[in-house]
Amino acid sequence: MGLMSAKEYKESLRDGRTVYLEGQKIEDVTAHPTLRVCMETAAIDYEMAEMPEYRELAVVAHPKTGELISRYYYNPRDSEDLLKRHELMVAATALGGGVIPFSHDVGADAMNAVNVTANMMGKEEYVQRAESYRRYLQNNDLSIACAMTDVKGDRALRPSSSNQGHPDYYVRVVDKNDKGIVVRGAKAHITAAAYSNEMFVIPCRNMSEEDKDYAVAFAIPADTKGVTQICHPVMTRLSSLDFPVEVPVRAHTDSLVVFDDVSVPWDRVFLCGEWQFAMPLVYNFAYLHRHTAASYRIPMSEALLGAAQAMAEYNGIETAPHVREKITDLVIYVDTLKSLARASCVDYVTHSGVLIPNPVISNTAKYHFAERVHDCVKAVEDIAGGLLITAPTYKDYQNPDTGKYIEKYLGGAAGISAEHRLRMLQLLRRLLGLETEVTAVHAEGSLQAQRMTIYFESLPEIDKCKKAVERAAGINR
Amino acid sequence: MGLMSAKEYKESLRDGRTVYLEGQKIEDVTAHPTLRVCMETAAIDYEMAEMPEYRELAVVAHPKTGELISRYYYNPRDSEDLLKRHELMVAATALGGGVIPFSHDVGADAMNAVNVTANMMGKEEYVQRAESYRRYLQNNDLSIACAMTDVKGDRALRPSSSNQGHPDYYVRVVDKNDKGIVVRGAKAHITAAAYSNEMFVIPCRNMSEEDKDYAVAFAIPADTKGVTQICHPVMTRLSSLDFPVEVPVRAHTDSLVVFDDVSVPWDRVFLCGEWQFAMPLVYNFAYLHRHTAASYRIPMSEALLGAAQAMAEYNGIETAPHVREKITDLVIYVDTLKSLARASCVDYVTHSGVLIPNPVISNTAKYHFAERVHDCVKAVEDIAGGLLITAPTYKDYQNPDTGKYIEKYLGGAAGISAEHRLRMLQLLRRLLGLETEVTAVHAEGSLQAQRMTIYFESLPEIDKCKKAVERAAGINR
Amino acid sequence: MGLMSAKEYKESLRDGRTVYLEGQKIEDVTAHPTLRVCMETAAIDYEMAEMPEYRELAVVAHPKTGELISRYYYNPRDSEDLLKRHELMVAATALGGGVIPFSHDVGADAMNAVNVTANMMGKEEYVQRAESYRRYLQNNDLSIACAMTDVKGDRALRPSSSNQGHPDYYVRVVDKNDKGIVVRGAKAHITAAAYSNEMFVIPCRNMSEEDKDYAVAFAIPADTKGVTQICHPVMTRLSSLDFPVEVPVRAHTDSLVVFDDVSVPWDRVFLCGEWQFAMPLVYNFAYLHRHTAASYRIPMSEALLGAAQAMAEYNGIETAPHVREKITDLVIYVDTLKSLARASCVDYVTHSGVLIPNPVISNTAKYHFAERVHDCVKAVEDIAGGLLITAPTYKDYQNPDTGKYIEKYLGGAAGISAEHRLRMLQLLRRLLGLETEVTAVHAEGSLQAQRMTIYFESLPEIDKCKKAVERAAGINR
Amino acid sequence: MGLMSAKEYKESLRDGRTVYLEGQKIEDVTAHPTLRVCMETAAIDYEMAEMPEYRELAVVAHPKTGELISRYYYNPRDSEDLLKRHELMVAATALGGGVIPFSHDVGADAMNAVNVTANMMGKEEYVQRAESYRRYLQNNDLSIACAMTDVKGDRALRPSSSNQGHPDYYVRVVDKNDKGIVVRGAKAHITAAAYSNEMFVIPCRNMSEEDKDYAVAFAIPADTKGVTQICHPVMTRLSSLDFPVEVPVRAHTDSLVVFDDVSVPWDRVFLCGEWQFAMPLVYNFAYLHRHTAASYRIPMSEALLGAAQAMAEYNGIETAPHVREKITDLVIYVDTLKSLARASCVDYVTHSGVLIPNPVISNTAKYHFAERVHDCVKAVEDIAGGLLITAPTYKDYQNPDTGKYIEKYLGGAAGISAEHRLRMLQLLRRLLGLETEVTAVHAEGSLQAQRMTIYFESLPEIDKCKKAVERAAGINR
Repeated sequence: MGLMSAKEYKESLRDGRTVYLEGQKIEDVTAHPTLRVCMETAAIDYEMAEMPEYRELAVVAHPKTGELISRYYYNPRDSEDLLKRHELMVAATALGGGVIPFSHDVGADAMNAVNVTANMMGKEEYVQRAESYRRYLQNNDLSIACAMTDVKGDRALRPSSSNQGHPDYYVRVVDKNDKGIVVRGAKAHITAAAYSNEMFVIPCRNMSEEDKDYAVAFAIPADTKGVTQICHPVMTRLSSLDFPVEVPVRAHTDSLVVFDDVSVPWDRVFLCGEWQFAMPLVYNFAYLHRHTAASYRIPMSEALLGAAQAMAEYNGIETAPHVREKITDLVIYVDTLKSLARASCVDYVTHSGVLIPNPVISNTAKYHFAERVHDCVKAVEDIAGGLLITAPTYKDYQNPDTGKYIEKYLGGAAGISAEHRLRMLQLLRRLLGLETEVTAVHAEGSLQAQRMTIYFESLPEIDKCKKAVERAAGINR
Repeated sequence: MGLMSAKEYKESLRDGRTVYLEGQKIEDVTAHPTLRVCMETAAIDYEMAEMPEYRELAVVAHPKTGELISRYYYNPRDSEDLLKRHELMVAATALGGGVIPFSHDVGADAMNAVNVTANMMGKEEYVQRAESYRRYLQNNDLSIACAMTDVKGDRALRPSSSNQGHPDYYVRVVDKNDKGIVVRGAKAHITAAAYSNEMFVIPCRNMSEEDKDYAVAFAIPADTKGVTQICHPVMTRLSSLDFPVEVPVRAHTDSLVVFDDVSVPWDRVFLCGEWQFAMPLVYNFAYLHRHTAASYRIPMSEALLGAAQAMAEYNGIETAPHVREKITDLVIYVDTLKSLARASCVDYVTHSGVLIPNPVISNTAKYHFAERVHDCVKAVEDIAGGLLITAPTYKDYQNPDTGKYIEKYLGGAAGISAEHRLRMLQLLRRLLGLETEVTAVHAEGSLQAQRMTIYFESLPEIDKCKKAVERAAGINR
Repeated sequence: MGLMSAKEYKESLRDGRTVYLEGQKIEDVTAHPTLRVCMETAAIDYEMAEMPEYRELAVVAHPKTGELISRYYYNPRDSEDLLKRHELMVAATALGGGVIPFSHDVGADAMNAVNVTANMMGKEEYVQRAESYRRYLQNNDLSIACAMTDVKGDRALRPSSSNQGHPDYYVRVVDKNDKGIVVRGAKAHITAAAYSNEMFVIPCRNMSEEDKDYAVAFAIPADTKGVTQICHPVMTRLSSLDFPVEVPVRAHTDSLVVFDDVSVPWDRVFLCGEWQFAMPLVYNFAYLHRHTAASYRIPMSEALLGAAQAMAEYNGIETAPHVREKITDLVIYVDTLKSLARASCVDYVTHSGVLIPNPVISNTAKYHFAERVHDCVKAVEDIAGGLLITAPTYKDYQNPDTGKYIEKYLGGAAGISAEHRLRMLQLLRRLLGLETEVTAVHAEGSLQAQRMTIYFESLPEIDKCKKAVERAAGINR
Repeated sequence: MGLMSAKEYKESLRDGRTVYLEGQKIEDVTAHPTLRVCMETAAIDYEMAEMPEYRELAVVAHPKTGELISRYYYNPRDSEDLLKRHELMVAATALGGGVIPFSHDVGADAMNAVNVTANMMGKEEYVQRAESYRRYLQNNDLSIACAMTDVKGDRALRPSSSNQGHPDYYVRVVDKNDKGIVVRGAKAHITAAAYSNEMFVIPCRNMSEEDKDYAVAFAIPADTKGVTQICHPVMTRLSSLDFPVEVPVRAHTDSLVVFDDVSVPWDRVFLCGEWQFAMPLVYNFAYLHRHTAASYRIPMSEALLGAAQAMAEYNGIETAPHVREKITDLVIYVDTLKSLARASCVDYVTHSGVLIPNPVISNTAKYHFAERVHDCVKAVEDIAGGLLITAPTYKDYQNPDTGKYIEKYLGGAAGISAEHRLRMLQLLRRLLGLETEVTAVHAEGSLQAQRMTIYFESLPEIDKCKKAVERAAGINR
């Protein structure tokens, strides 16, 4: 018990879980060339706890027991604590080359959301289950994914609508007995689930009374019977056409997680039919997780800024006015993101005793990142030049017949070799493009989801502002 | 000595200063119908020190003497102090119906900039003069304007360029003697100078060695011989076509301040020929003043949000999707501004012992406000409707022949009378429009000035980000 | 009969109409200092028919009778004709210093919409009434306004909703008899109605069966009994603080037009209860009128471009990179507007025998103008500088004590006197600001109204594009 | 002689040209699996001339000889001709599944630019060479690429700058003799050069007198001695993880073309030392080619619109307000592009007897496409959902253990099977992403290049607008 080592974490994944990739069943996720890279990425969280320079950030003494626990599973008590957690996520992502480990962070957000919601419901059994599960995670330092997004079918219809093609487009309770509940359905885009110990399952939308079988939240081990994961392919190795780079590739895959009549014991059930609390649970998770999102996007945003400046210098255009304007725009983008993420810790709110980074500000932070990332991508593409997609390969560089030409002709400003430019362009091809853009737009909820949260959370502020102008206009309503 | 009362402030302005307005010389600015309103606006600063609910915010004990002084003239020691000063400016502006008093704030920014620059120059006499002038302001609680923007002539030419129409387009030293210096030139857009006690005069751009006569900074009383102010008209009364409103109109005017061979004693000279320090003085002022700007724009931004919501409700469209999106955009605008202004206090820097709100972040805050204000104005105009400009007048409302039609036909959603709508539209006509837009774009430096500061201040951050991507790409330079 | 002279037009307005302005009843609109300026603006249409250089553009032979008629009342037969009409509006607006005369243009759009809709309904009596009214306008060359926008009350409710404060928020038929109908209600923002001969009244939204009393369209003389107009104040003279300018001020006012149980004879009724055709009539008018709008905004857009370049040169910044970028953005704005307006004539459609500029393209043109005008205003404000609002007045310039300073200090780049700059700034204050912005956003329908038209009109195009990608994806539905 | 068949075109490529791909020398480009697909794409141009439904568009009788020639090599005589050529490019690109064949179009732009520039220079020999080469292309119907972009080295330095790493960063004349010239250098991003018959080589920037050796333009066969092409990899086959689709994959590759002391006979030299005409040649090519660019981007833009609508329907969200707004934005994008491209044909200009689509408008068209494409990509990504990157593969769909879950859970709105959604997402992954974005930004010149053209080409229009506002302000300069 206590902190798990990186080695223990990896070994713990050989548990018979059912995972498919590219049409094949993967017997041991720790041995598969793609999934192993993802697992190594997740293991960074555990490694940080073992590294002297990060230990203080990653680990904290339990306020009651004094035992060392992951900072993610610790309950922040003031804005200092919130800022520390924020800095931990930034540091972990920087270590992961722009990829957050996802071992504890998202699970902790779900754990806290479940705790807050249990308190809101005021049912003692839920409060105790949530608290006991928190202690379980703290004591065993387990990695945990969060399965939220249902596959949904027709997005315009409610879960229980008879116009849906079938009743299972949202995860639902199909049976209950004295041991627990039986659930059916599927969740999409579940990052890191294939190499997490546990899985939180929570609703992804508001529910009406008719939907009450869909108002269900629980946690289960990833190897639970009836759970099948279908992962999607990810690029985890450089190809033979690429320049070799010593920095390891970091990546995650996401799973379509299918629950084919899965049994969940009562002590792991955190919502079951209380349809009025589906939405609060969603919101409580979203509050916390959008702050996580805003945090881990900082290193990626900084990479866009760094790449733009590097390519500008390599091409000799860093003082061209329109280039300097683009760099300035990128600085504004990065520093606004950082300031919003930090301000949300400073001006936190408290829900049922749990500190929550200011919801309006952290949603604004995440939205700022996602709404403008395409502009930043465009700026980098503009500065980098067409060679981004027309650059010759490492093999052309190695072949002496073509390598001599490449070395001669693809140099840049003084002191910048063709190799430097080709290496930077290679990095940029990984940094830019579809996956970056789609993840920005959709991970942690769509742009519209953030806008809705911002709107509803700021209704009191809107009203205050309205009343002030009414006074100024001499209007008494 | 010590704090000045609002009454004393007003009386102090009957000093024989030379002020023109609408082509006429104003003998007593405190008696002129327009200038009196401006003076009343400025007096709010002094009134707050007398109001129990604001006293703690507005006044602070001098750390050495214990004497009560204006918080503006107090040296902040930590982020708490910076946040308090920020909150004072927000509160004062809210009290001023969206107009900041401008009695101490901008002058304090200049005072601090002069102090920092004196320390940077390392000349003992400048350090002592700056420090002594700070004590003078603290002890006498004087209001002080800051005259920065020269009239410039051809903006593409240096001050000393022989291609300028004449050598006086930037304020310059035309003579020196043992008593002091003699200066000539003119400064434009000097807000509140017509009703301030003193006036800081500082350069507005970098200087080369040829420009050294233009590298001059000093402070003088507003009634100094040779100083002529030409103010521009401002709307300080509601017209007879307007609905009467009890809330007083608040406004400022700006002066074209002409220095026609004005003598300045040496102990009020803070820069005289040290051309290398013209730019640092400009920057030090800009750092501080853009934070002031970001602060005092918060109530005005909140008014735009409040007005949009009010008109949406009056028109019955507050739940229309495109209206809700616009309200959400306004919330994002306001909360980003507030978060950036606050974050700049949290992550402050220290220059020569003076605490400076983070320059990149506070410039980003001011830029955010100014860059997007037109979008906000557009949203409010869109929601308010064409009645904004086609509304009948209060006289039409009073005339029973037309009033009956107006009352019947210009009502809005349930419970919203025609009078309510007309009153809100009247307020909006003051809130929106040319003055708001131009002030946003140009006060405290143009958009481009803020972009330049952001760029140059973030060069170390840019470089750090660049080096990180180079490492990731396997590039050793 | 035949063409009316400008003199005849003006005389025709002394007809006892009921018009109020600033709370007073105006006995003779042609004699009132404000309304006379508006009338002179409208008279440009009639003057052009008398000016040799415009006669060919303004006047055309009736294809059957050969009699000369206004081009506005002529039925275009090909894209050449549409382009000619477009060029007429551009020329008239340029002559009007950026203000379109509004004597025939908007009325012609309504006339054509009424004709098309009559044909769509297929009721012979409507077809004949519409045709006969067209001949009446052609033969008498009358000026005619179009009253479309109802006062609406709660915009979220239907006209007939019992939740509306009263049943008259939309113009409706309160009685019918063998002579005609009696109508009650009020229309807002009716430009030029106070100095037009006639007035078209048409619905402004779709109607359901319950709203059928509100599905009414008709035309009446402006002096019809029961019609009261309440105009809003407009600035039609330069003040004594302004530099005198020889170019006449051009302006329009808009009326709140109240119909207090007004009788309309049957031969002037074009819709009465056919609620299904309220929307088609709205759309047919909008198709035509948004093209008119896109046309007459061209000179105004060109003025923004010209003003930006003028001020850039006066300030000596026309080659600064960020200024050149803003000028380029303005060129793109202007030329996109012009290209869209012209392309809509080239790719016209035909509705019931009437040529309609392509609805998607002309709505896109109008939307382009309105959606981006704030950006253009911002660019001009940015380039012009703070003097836009802080400039001294003509009186200060005349007073020798201050005039000498202004002349010396407010000069610009070589050869640009203070007077030049002050004159241009004075023009800009009229060109920019609230009225420009609100008119852009709301005249001829809101931004959202144009977006809706674009969406619904392009459904077939959207579907065609969708089917093409489905084929490419191998999807057979 | 005369038109070449698609078969003849392909056979003509077996000519011993030196082409490398992925580090390997390709002996026969027509036999290589990747290059063959590119060649098939280029062959569409030749196939259209053979297809009855396109023949009239693709082929035209030579006005003098009456012989049938490609429309691309025909000289347009009026706006009708320009519109026909525009429609040919749109149709060819639609046939190519969004990829333009590139066999004649870009070469024809270069050919016309060379003709115009020869006339501008007024040297008879150049005029005759250009005319004779045009006849050669007409008579032999050859495909021809255009090599314009030099590799540049330090972009801030001139070609002849001694600070460049070596003197060959721009193609230059290293020797002349009585047979012709010898050239050295390299051109980057040369689309379709690997499977074109000929290659135009023209400068890519303005030149000063020092650069005169770099002021060179010529045409040579692709198999000329000393010419080496290094292509970049392209995706020309669906992978085994993809759903099979019957529609062929279309693609191009681009070459880095190296000129290692290549001899060019005098009759193929079109510029040699006349440095003043480097820029006019660049501009003349850019005028024409940006219109080509605007034309061939239409089908691709329509595909984005179609994809957005398809995915919106599949997901059941096509009536959600924010989705409808995005669709509307895409319609505005597409129709503005189409209108600008067409308007540039209507308002053409004539340079040295050659009709040129209006340069300001066609540059605005290309710029509009490129400047806003990221917004469109974002809209499609937003509507499509995270499944864009997390979708399971065709192999998962085929494996019955996972296929049953996929079929059940990844269905969408009523009637939309999982297969439909997965197929559309697969298409979108090809349509979106880095290559689309970078090509949009950089092909046919960067965003900034278009802005510069727009600015300089519109200087007369800007001046006209400025003079108009000066008149209105009463300013006589």
